[in-house]
Amino acid sequence: MSTVSSIEQLAINTIKLLSVDQVNAAQSGHPGAPLGLAPLAHVIWKQLRFNPKNPTWINRDRFVLSNGHSVALLYSLLHLFGYSLTIEDLKQFRQLHSRTPGHPEADLDGIDVTTGPLGQGISNAVGLAIAQKNFAARYNKPGFTLSDSFTYVVLGDGCLQEGVSSEASSLAGHLKLNNLIAFYDDNHITIDGDTNVSFTEDVNKRYEAYGWNVIHVQNGNTDLESIRNALEQAKKSDKPTLIRLTTIIGYGSLQQGTHSVHGAPLKADDLKQLKSKLGFNPEEYFAVPQEVYDYYQKETLTPGELLNEEWNKLFESYSKEYPTEAGEISRRLKGEFPSDWVSKLPTYTPEDKALATRKLSELTLETIFDYLPELIGGSADLTGSNLTRTKEATDFQPDDSGIGSYNGRYIRYGVREHGMGAILNGIAAFGANYKAYGGTFLNFVSYAAGAVRLSALSGHPVIWVATHDSIGLGEDGPTHQPIETLAHFRAVPNIKVWRPADGNEVSASYKVALEQKHTPSIIALSRQNLPQLEGSSIEKASKGAYVLKDVENPDVIILGTGSEVSIAVDSVKVLADKGIKARIVSFPDTHTFDQQSEEYKLSVLPDGVPILSVEVLSPFGWSKYSHEQFGISRFGASGKAPEVYKFFEFTPEGIASRAEKTIEFYKGQQVKSPLKRAF
Amino acid sequence: MSTVSSIEQLAINTIKLLSVDQVNAAQSGHPGAPLGLAPLAHVIWKQLRFNPKNPTWINRDRFVLSNGHSVALLYSLLHLFGYSLTIEDLKQFRQLHSRTPGHPEADLDGIDVTTGPLGQGISNAVGLAIAQKNFAARYNKPGFTLSDSFTYVVLGDGCLQEGVSSEASSLAGHLKLNNLIAFYDDNHITIDGDTNVSFTEDVNKRYEAYGWNVIHVQNGNTDLESIRNALEQAKKSDKPTLIRLTTIIGYGSLQQGTHSVHGAPLKADDLKQLKSKLGFNPEEYFAVPQEVYDYYQKETLTPGELLNEEWNKLFESYSKEYPTEAGEISRRLKGEFPSDWVSKLPTYTPEDKALATRKLSELTLETIFDYLPELIGGSADLTGSNLTRTKEATDFQPDDSGIGSYNGRYIRYGVREHGMGAILNGIAAFGANYKAYGGTFLNFVSYAAGAVRLSALSGHPVIWVATHDSIGLGEDGPTHQPIETLAHFRAVPNIKVWRPADGNEVSASYKVALEQKHTPSIIALSRQNLPQLEGSSIEKASKGAYVLKDVENPDVIILGTGSEVSIAVDSVKVLADKGIKARIVSFPDTHTFDQQSEEYKLSVLPDGVPILSVEVLSPFGWSKYSHEQFGISRFGASGKAPEVYKFFEFTPEGIASRAEKTIEFYKGQQVKSPLKRAF
Repeated sequence: MSTVSSIEQLAINTIKLLSVDQVNAAQSGHPGAPLGLAPLAHVIWKQLRFNPKNPTWINRDRFVLSNGHSVALLYSLLHLFGYSLTIEDLKQFRQLHSRTPGHPEADLDGIDVTTGPLGQGISNAVGLAIAQKNFAARYNKPGFTLSDSFTYVVLGDGCLQEGVSSEASSLAGHLKLNNLIAFYDDNHITIDGDTNVSFTEDVNKRYEAYGWNVIHVQNGNTDLESIRNALEQAKKSDKPTLIRLTTIIGYGSLQQGTHSVHGAPLKADDLKQLKSKLGFNPEEYFAVPQEVYDYYQKETLTPGELLNEEWNKLFESYSKEYPTEAGEISRRLKGEFPSDWVSKLPTYTPEDKALATRKLSELTLETIFDYLPELIGGSADLTGSNLTRTKEATDFQPDDSGIGSYNGRYIRYGVREHGMGAILNGIAAFGANYKAYGGTFLNFVSYAAGAVRLSALSGHPVIWVATHDSIGLGEDGPTHQPIETLAHFRAVPNIKVWRPADGNEVSASYKVALEQKHTPSIIALSRQNLPQLEGSSIEKASKGAYVLKDVENPDVIILGTGSEVSIAVDSVKVLADKGIKARIVSFPDTHTFDQQSEEYKLSVLPDGVPILSVEVLSPFGWSKYSHEQFGISRFGASGKAPEVYKFFEFTPEGIASRAEKTIEFYKGQQVKSPLKRAF
Repeated sequence: MSTVSSIEQLAINTIKLLSVDQVNAAQSGHPGAPLGLAPLAHVIWKQLRFNPKNPTWINRDRFVLSNGHSVALLYSLLHLFGYSLTIEDLKQFRQLHSRTPGHPEADLDGIDVTTGPLGQGISNAVGLAIAQKNFAARYNKPGFTLSDSFTYVVLGDGCLQEGVSSEASSLAGHLKLNNLIAFYDDNHITIDGDTNVSFTEDVNKRYEAYGWNVIHVQNGNTDLESIRNALEQAKKSDKPTLIRLTTIIGYGSLQQGTHSVHGAPLKADDLKQLKSKLGFNPEEYFAVPQEVYDYYQKETLTPGELLNEEWNKLFESYSKEYPTEAGEISRRLKGEFPSDWVSKLPTYTPEDKALATRKLSELTLETIFDYLPELIGGSADLTGSNLTRTKEATDFQPDDSGIGSYNGRYIRYGVREHGMGAILNGIAAFGANYKAYGGTFLNFVSYAAGAVRLSALSGHPVIWVATHDSIGLGEDGPTHQPIETLAHFRAVPNIKVWRPADGNEVSASYKVALEQKHTPSIIALSRQNLPQLEGSSIEKASKGAYVLKDVENPDVIILGTGSEVSIAVDSVKVLADKGIKARIVSFPDTHTFDQQSEEYKLSVLPDGVPILSVEVLSPFGWSKYSHEQFGISRFGASGKAPEVYKFFEFTPEGIASRAEKTIEFYKGQQVKSPLKRAF
């Protein structure tokens, strides 16, 4: 084809064969998409701005492979474009302990977000684009364009069918994120065969409805010129762009255009004929002609390195002209907060008035939001209920909207929890120490379970401000009252699930959550007022659990979280009247407690005393820390919050009676701390 | 307005005031939407086909309030239109133990699906419409239109923003469900204020892109004629219809058009002026003029009752002409299976070959799918992997599609897990004993968490066929390997979470899941082959847990689920070599086990023997049944399945070594069954 030089064709063919060779070596994986997408990948990556020697350069372009099952393609690119993946790594594709797992994972240089679960990558890309816009709006100055990078994303039919991408795409259109360029691999094939069986909507029209610029490239298999033109056109758009690229899955394979080439290795014969067809030795595997390395070095890597150097110089001059901003940027790029930020966190004494922890969360945000420019908040609607917006915050909106600016740091996500979760991940992945938080009711964090899991797996330290955290929300009833939610997220590895009991514990939750580099957090907050506790402190709560109220030789330890802690404290008096001595442990986060020393943990939950845990949600999982559990194993009830609490017996008397039964049950027995395990 | 008769206006005003009076009495709830939507509600309900004396009449029209927070409106309608809700019930709005909780719950006559969590209702409605199409296609005969009902749904901006509704709506367009008529309350207000802050997409265009018929009614506040015309037009469409109705939220209130009227009661003054304005006594509450009752009786209830009687007669004649079909319908309407259906379930002996439980699931479906016409399957793509489609199944597709028909019972959901979950609920809610199952990878059931929770809360006995249930899926790696998933769903009340270990247990899972009237099930199935176990049977596994392999005076009990049971069996030999005796318990479903007699449960997990549980997912929650837990508390790994199992030490030796440590740890102690609790 006249628009393709022979070296380009050689490069594209190399990408194709490196990819299918990986799948072949593993005898597992997805050869179809890489064969269809290699020309596109070549066009994008050839002009991509990055420097593998400085993989976290803040003004690099981002590339997201949303159809993560095509990961062999990405590994081929990372190898050819100078990242640290070797041919040996590619040969270990999908093998245990290799650097090339079955889907892209964000801990590898050149991969910013973990993809594979469909719909996530395109939504992460919206977050990356938001972060870039915000970073540029805050720091760019006349003559100093510190940030102008693009986010490129490749996605398939599956990504477009997932609701999470609909949510994020609608918001991207609203926000006019013209730094976002998405390529839709319109290959008409999913695992179920032709997309005609379930997906006949007019995608172009849908994206136009979202406010996107839509371009159709008819022949994505060979027409590089049209792909290039579309890409250049997209860069000039004032909207996000979807470039729909009609391709043939598995192009060049004998099985091209069928779903049999989607998720299974090519047969030996097919692989051979493909190699011959592309001018490669059919008996050779993982072949990379030196001229391909040289070509990308010259066309992409050397220019990228130069651009990075130029940026460094630009930043040097910027530092002289704008020392404050430059200082802030440097601090953020190091991933550090101002050293005194913790002192800004509010503290409370028992004399301070009772407040809902959602309100205390708002007060905390008020004190730190302006101080930490990397904080970028938002809510999936419900702002007035979850109190996530500080008074002086500016909304993140297009500059011409009249209702905010890209320099704003409060994002109106709309009623789109899953989209929000994936966007939070993208913002965190941008770098520059961005700490993104998003608000909704705790019960609706579940809508975003797919994204929350990826926060944890990828180590994006995002924060969910999850209010209305129990039956204590009252009248909205069981549809809104979480029961399983805390158990669900506590069972996810690498995520903190806070349920603070008062103001000091709210401050502690934010302190620890914001300090995380690789761990996301959910902060569950009450709708109803809670008293400020005697004995709480930021320091103590930062350990995840601590002795709030002690007594010598307790007969029982009662541990509680959030709104139940003060009720547990009140149960002490009821028990005392019967001559029973109880220690109260406040337990805001199990994940943080798990990280403490064995000695500390056993000082809180020692041998010899039976332990009762109290939480108005499912007791599921609490037996890790308690001998007996008081919780709710059914759905909640609609009614006034105090009446609902009473109905479920979460009262001082209700707790006391269960504490008595616990003591009785363990009487005369050798009681081991539940922390002591056999292995 | 000339198109509104005075009695109609009186009726509409009554609906409005009954609704705001409920919110006022509770001092909690949402008055805005009912005020804006009463005219629409009147138009829909006046012509709605139903008979409150026979609320489950199969050919009734269905009405879904997707913006469930407007529930006061629905309670007003149920009262005025002859359902069992009294004025006293309305006065108890949102009070504990009342029949009028804060959001619509499906256990009340006239409410088919529980709504409130946004986006669910419209998606349930797609399921209701699918079921109607399927029922009609199977049973309607020339001259005998047994089924031709419509599903009406009202939804707001929030529902449209949620991805779940995007998924279901795209599928509804694909399926050309012209029995579905949705009214979009375009009031421009959410809790965050004007929808302009986050929702500026062109909704009409988006729904056209999905293949819907879209009609815009400019004045939903008073223009009944246009609403009526739009509705009649929709009934004649060959596509699903979205009628966009521009309304003013809180119409008539002093706060109309603002978000302050969305979620808080009207102020006293405002309520009074509203009543005066509408010609009602401002001092009177819950007033219903008798002529309004009479009007709806005449216009709607009497005709509805007659239609129901006519249908009964029609069915009588049908029974003579088509006795087989009529028998089948009668059976289904009673919610009964053919008495011998259980005998169709396949059974296995240890001589049968090792198979993946996903494959055994396919074999089970093969034996019962044609026998049970109420089974309606499907998959969110991945059909070839989760094996949910029986060989002879016809796809559920529009009759003119050439790739199936409405009489088909296999639904191609596309990559839309959350939409699928909500649609399953809608199909189940239709009645006629529909048993809907949907397939995907276990890890991606989490995408549908919002819908799964509502299956459980509403008691829709749907079934998730959840394959690739662990690290055993191998190379796809941690993005696809569930860790927290089983713990998550086990913590949800009223849901069965099966993880069968072999063919007999797969049959048992389906047996119990299909027998449920009010409990959904997830059946977690392996990708990898598993041997047929000595000692398993449908009967035993139907108890949720049972002794698979026993020994006199065991030193330890090892309980396992799914793919780990056979490894646990192999560990017995390793232990025996060291003189250790182990009982093996297979534990396919904790929910079912919980329902057994105390005596049975203690016979499986008695006092005196330490218990080790083994499952290759998060051990979270297993301490309810075991003293020590062997699980995985991190994310998985990409690699060949046997190697990944070995890495995590889920081998006979790995289990045996933990069993030894468990015995050691409890040596000399009095060991109580974990089933014994203090309260």
